[in-house]
Amino acid sequence: MASKEEAGKLEWRISVDNGTTERLVPTSGRSKRIFLWLKGFVKKVIVERMTKFMRNTWRIGADDPAKVVHCLKVGLALSLVSIFYYMRPLYDGVGGNAMWAIMTVVVVFESTVGATFSKCVNRVVATIVAGTLGIAVHWVATQSGKAEIFVTACSVFLFAFTATYSRFVPSFKSRFDYGAMIFILTFSLVSVGGYRVDKLFDMAQQRASTIVIGTCICIVITVFLCPIWAGSQLHRLVQHNFLKLADSLDGCVAEYFKMKDMSTNEDEETKMKLQRFKCVLNSKGTEEAMANLARWEPAHGSFNFRHPWQQYVKIGAAMRRCAYCLENLSICMNYETEAPDQVKNHFGEACMKLSSASSKILRELADLIKNTRKSSKMDYLVFDMNSAVQELQEALKTVSIKTNKPEEEEDVKYEEDKVGDRTIPMNLHEVLPVATLVSLLIENAARIQTTVEAVDELANLAEFKQDSKKKIGGNNAT
Amino acid sequence: MASKEEAGKLEWRISVDNGTTERLVPTSGRSKRIFLWLKGFVKKVIVERMTKFMRNTWRIGADDPAKVVHCLKVGLALSLVSIFYYMRPLYDGVGGNAMWAIMTVVVVFESTVGATFSKCVNRVVATIVAGTLGIAVHWVATQSGKAEIFVTACSVFLFAFTATYSRFVPSFKSRFDYGAMIFILTFSLVSVGGYRVDKLFDMAQQRASTIVIGTCICIVITVFLCPIWAGSQLHRLVQHNFLKLADSLDGCVAEYFKMKDMSTNEDEETKMKLQRFKCVLNSKGTEEAMANLARWEPAHGSFNFRHPWQQYVKIGAAMRRCAYCLENLSICMNYETEAPDQVKNHFGEACMKLSSASSKILRELADLIKNTRKSSKMDYLVFDMNSAVQELQEALKTVSIKTNKPEEEEDVKYEEDKVGDRTIPMNLHEVLPVATLVSLLIENAARIQTTVEAVDELANLAEFKQDSKKKIGGNNAT
Repeated sequence: MASKEEAGKLEWRISVDNGTTERLVPTSGRSKRIFLWLKGFVKKVIVERMTKFMRNTWRIGADDPAKVVHCLKVGLALSLVSIFYYMRPLYDGVGGNAMWAIMTVVVVFESTVGATFSKCVNRVVATIVAGTLGIAVHWVATQSGKAEIFVTACSVFLFAFTATYSRFVPSFKSRFDYGAMIFILTFSLVSVGGYRVDKLFDMAQQRASTIVIGTCICIVITVFLCPIWAGSQLHRLVQHNFLKLADSLDGCVAEYFKMKDMSTNEDEETKMKLQRFKCVLNSKGTEEAMANLARWEPAHGSFNFRHPWQQYVKIGAAMRRCAYCLENLSICMNYETEAPDQVKNHFGEACMKLSSASSKILRELADLIKNTRKSSKMDYLVFDMNSAVQELQEALKTVSIKTNKPEEEEDVKYEEDKVGDRTIPMNLHEVLPVATLVSLLIENAARIQTTVEAVDELANLAEFKQDSKKKIGGNNAT
Repeated sequence: MASKEEAGKLEWRISVDNGTTERLVPTSGRSKRIFLWLKGFVKKVIVERMTKFMRNTWRIGADDPAKVVHCLKVGLALSLVSIFYYMRPLYDGVGGNAMWAIMTVVVVFESTVGATFSKCVNRVVATIVAGTLGIAVHWVATQSGKAEIFVTACSVFLFAFTATYSRFVPSFKSRFDYGAMIFILTFSLVSVGGYRVDKLFDMAQQRASTIVIGTCICIVITVFLCPIWAGSQLHRLVQHNFLKLADSLDGCVAEYFKMKDMSTNEDEETKMKLQRFKCVLNSKGTEEAMANLARWEPAHGSFNFRHPWQQYVKIGAAMRRCAYCLENLSICMNYETEAPDQVKNHFGEACMKLSSASSKILRELADLIKNTRKSSKMDYLVFDMNSAVQELQEALKTVSIKTNKPEEEEDVKYEEDKVGDRTIPMNLHEVLPVATLVSLLIENAARIQTTVEAVDELANLAEFKQDSKKKIGGNNAT
């Protein structure tokens, strides 16, 4: 900093001193400037970028410590395998193939228990099946004399083709994709490698034992050392998505009707809230992947082995339909023509009521998923939402419209309201934003009801416990 | 079939013959029935399910022959490696490590050129870097005497931790995820395995050469034998998505206004059309993955090496926003209360005009992407769409509304229209579906315009050729 200031002073003095001799200033200044520019460049591009990158990298770990834990676990597992490799007695026991143990750990160790289990099972089963098949093919090939090469090459082609093709079948791919790859690998190695290595059975046995050792180390570390369950992550994801939808819904409607008492927070924060639902729009892939992994996991926490994970995918789909409605609520916010205050006031209360009833349901859903309980007040909340929809529809019915050909527009007489407010002549164009908002809110309510049904089904399938503590004084039967 | 009939006859005769001795009938019939049930079970569950599964599996290949081609290529590559392994001269040249060639082919060979390239580069670079580092660490470890085990284990832990952590950094993960895994694998193998194998340099050189051989076979087969380019697939995907949006938009609006002349097709087909846009909703993951792979690909077809693939992701995002609008168009279709014919007629023409102008733009976008050309009539089409929006807004302005308190509803006088049609008293509730439709169509037009801008940017970045043949007679400057 100081050197930069000095350089600045120096340049300044030179340009004052040599103010008359114009040719000297640029040359002397240019080399300085190039130096400064280079310095700035290094500072900006390398130091700043590196700092930014390091900060971002740090934040990834700080935001989700589970990731750091996973990295530590991988390091530990590999160190364990290394130590295992150093111990001569064990080393002699499994032969010189300890490399396979290292490879198994590197390839199989995933961040969630479900993914690790899935890969372990796939690897072990595929290795056994492919190994057996490979030995059989190798035996057939050796029996066939001259045609040995032909038999081996053809069988490799055939099995590689079939296994690769099976990876395109969705139902197979979702569970056994990794297994198919290991199958091709092991089969090729055994059937082709068998040509050279005479001790085929020994090799197979050695490889199997090293793989089992690697697999065991992975499973022990992944399950008993700060386990990260895909199921719990999915469960939490769905719960958080409900809260995000509720926040955005509340935020949107409050923002539109500018209920100052509702949005006293910072402007930036409100905007953030409005955007929170956006991650629900694209959560399909994550949810499906996690549901696929979760079914490999043993019972943990409040989830038993056969927890209906696929139901979460259905809930996710229902939730996404709500998110599509919210996405279009932004239309109403961005209209060029704002609806007249009169119309806003007419619908404001009913809309706010509906949106708060809807978001209450979403929050209740999040809460009952969080605590894996059945809700006793859900019926009441749904009833509440439906009556809010009714109310909004009544409010709609009190607004009359009239279609006129343009040239007769002047003929329409606007009478004064008896209550005293002057009725301002309006056309549908002006109320369109409000009408759209109302329409989307009503549709959103219907979609929330579908979501409630999906969560109900989950509660029944997973046998969530009956809600006891949170009971609303007897009026849940209304 | 014949045996089944016989069994039926047999049962019939028995039940007639022994009609009086009631105890015999059920026992004799029951065993038959169990046999028949078992037969039916086998037929239904095993045969039918297998048939269905086989048919589905067949269809995967029939729908997308590229998948079958990929499977054939994998089989061919593996057979080639096997043959390579059989040839003694070559075998002696690369040492006994030919296993690594097989492994490379199995692991690296992906269906698209981009994915194969990405994995090849990752594998080769990561192997070289990790191998060098591993040798260095091994040398340091051997120099440190007693602390050898400690140094090796610590370095494995440290590098495994760092490489695993780097896989969580999004910008790194999208390109070098596979490389990080190979880095950990190779580093562990070299630094730990080095403890046993004395000929470390030999091993490294052997492994590198086999990997290069495997990589070369993969690259040659993937590029020169019916190549499947990730870039072309992405290009086609975006193009098809435009067509799907256009179809659905046309279908929805025509279905709503029941323009019989437009939808003379089968009911089933129309419904299919309406649903076509749905795959656009969840295409984000596919598009991003393909764009990531496409940038590894060399120039091919009309795409050069630095084709702006990331722009396709932007186009995809803009398209998805249109799809969200279409998703909500279904709201209007499912309303309980249908809008009165009068209102439908009032807006029908303008809505149809806007939707056809919008879908024309979508089709033009699909066409210009297909032919990688700049459109000369796009300005004209956008102008057309905007004037259709204007027209629709004018139509909105001719519909007057009036807010009344419920008790004063009777006071409103509905006058007869001068044209002769009786103006039927309506309230906002009845026109809500149409209002929503109009609102969504207008918003959709705005979103389509954003999409047009994104495609324009692509055309500029990728230097699409100027459109020459498809020119609309001089009125594109309007």
